[in-house]
Amino acid sequence: MQPGIITIVGAGLIGGSLGLAAKERGLARTVRGIGRQRPSLERARAVGAIDEGFLEPGPALKGANLVIFCTPVDRIAEQILAYAPFCLPGTLLTDAGSTKGSIVAAVEEKLPAGIAFVGSHPLAGSEKRGADHADAKLFEGRLTVVTRTPRTDPNALEKIVAFWQAIGARVTVMAPADHDRALAMTSHLPHLLAAALAGMLPPELYDLTATGFRDTTRIAAGDPGLWTAIFAHNRDALLEALARFDQGARQLQAALETRNWPEVESLLRQAQKVRDALGN
Amino acid sequence: MQPGIITIVGAGLIGGSLGLAAKERGLARTVRGIGRQRPSLERARAVGAIDEGFLEPGPALKGANLVIFCTPVDRIAEQILAYAPFCLPGTLLTDAGSTKGSIVAAVEEKLPAGIAFVGSHPLAGSEKRGADHADAKLFEGRLTVVTRTPRTDPNALEKIVAFWQAIGARVTVMAPADHDRALAMTSHLPHLLAAALAGMLPPELYDLTATGFRDTTRIAAGDPGLWTAIFAHNRDALLEALARFDQGARQLQAALETRNWPEVESLLRQAQKVRDALGN
Repeated sequence: MQPGIITIVGAGLIGGSLGLAAKERGLARTVRGIGRQRPSLERARAVGAIDEGFLEPGPALKGANLVIFCTPVDRIAEQILAYAPFCLPGTLLTDAGSTKGSIVAAVEEKLPAGIAFVGSHPLAGSEKRGADHADAKLFEGRLTVVTRTPRTDPNALEKIVAFWQAIGARVTVMAPADHDRALAMTSHLPHLLAAALAGMLPPELYDLTATGFRDTTRIAAGDPGLWTAIFAHNRDALLEALARFDQGARQLQAALETRNWPEVESLLRQAQKVRDALGN
Repeated sequence: MQPGIITIVGAGLIGGSLGLAAKERGLARTVRGIGRQRPSLERARAVGAIDEGFLEPGPALKGANLVIFCTPVDRIAEQILAYAPFCLPGTLLTDAGSTKGSIVAAVEEKLPAGIAFVGSHPLAGSEKRGADHADAKLFEGRLTVVTRTPRTDPNALEKIVAFWQAIGARVTVMAPADHDRALAMTSHLPHLLAAALAGMLPPELYDLTATGFRDTTRIAAGDPGLWTAIFAHNRDALLEALARFDQGARQLQAALETRNWPEVESLLRQAQKVRDALGN
């Protein structure tokens, strides 16, 4: 990718980290940010995540080579369609949303000719928010899923893959529906379980929690609005993942009820094997 | 507590950390360790967690002022009863087991006269094991539950509380059954859920996990044998906690099924509030 203009829509933790990483790696001559509030654009500029901040898309998109949408999943598709008319033919668009199926479908149907969109999801981030926590190394060694559909422009796909690799990410290419089914299990279900667990804790037990409870519920600190939008986008796959989880929990429950301790230990051993395989 | 002899039964992560902390704070002239295997006693000695290692209880307990049982919960009560006859009248016994009801009940019934036992559970530890990971600061600022029953010697209780405070822990005194009900929810249930979640992950999805999945399942790396013993000791309270969790999960499931997004967001918001209150 030639150094040029990268415009980031939503310069928070992910968008800000993309700006920092792109600048550090010399992938952009200029990084522009589009935001809804002047103060958050100022913070992104203060930490070096963007060079220029804009409240309006027109000037921010003028001459941009790559536009990356890092806004909540329920706003990405409509923003892409609203902003695409400001882009020159040949502009590449991608996103960093945690769901892919409905975003990719909504965008592909209606995108103007000459503007290519390829969906992305970097599996990075945290319960923290805002450009203040932006980190140029956030994507290093982490996986980014890039989506391919029958309508995806192969040339655009190649460039988007190259962009993520250039900022240090590993890339895997998947169909949007495969991404959503996988992430329902690896991300959205854990969030639901962590929230259900945190939500049931009465205040008198707060002091009796230790690292186990805190690790297990850490992601429940994530933004409720963002996660509701993710759950809404991926409702069916999440409900399926929850049903599968219930089967596993029911196995453990049945073994406890019948005092089948060898079975309990065998189930815990299987879980340990998986967890050990994941590393830290 | 006068500096004297502290004997630690099971010099692993918890026992080794107790030895280091007691020595660093000048609470013991000598720390002895009892173990089943020479190499692990040697490691505990190499890291400074114990001064002397013993494979047999007799010499290890001779003249000890305080004996702390840091072995798996399914072995603590029988070890206490087997070792107590080697102790002089006035020796204080405590433990560091994750369950309290059945240990305290089994010990209190049969302890010889003149030997006092007070149950303890420091809410510290990790999925790591062995004296190699021992840390003198493991208990600093962390809560230790000390148990009281109608049979507990008030003088012994006071000394055990003072010991934990002297190594930096905060202490709360509870009835064993109250401890077990609380820990079922704050520790044993999270372990069960983490194991059920980790256990369902097929290998092809390992690479699609990020920090959320890893945090949520971290404790599933814990030792399956130890945790089966904990689950067995606290089966009833754990099954009750699981039933309460199911209610919370069913609320989220119902809200997803009916696409009641305000309800989903409200449940996630309640969970976020709890998690934020717990700190890191």
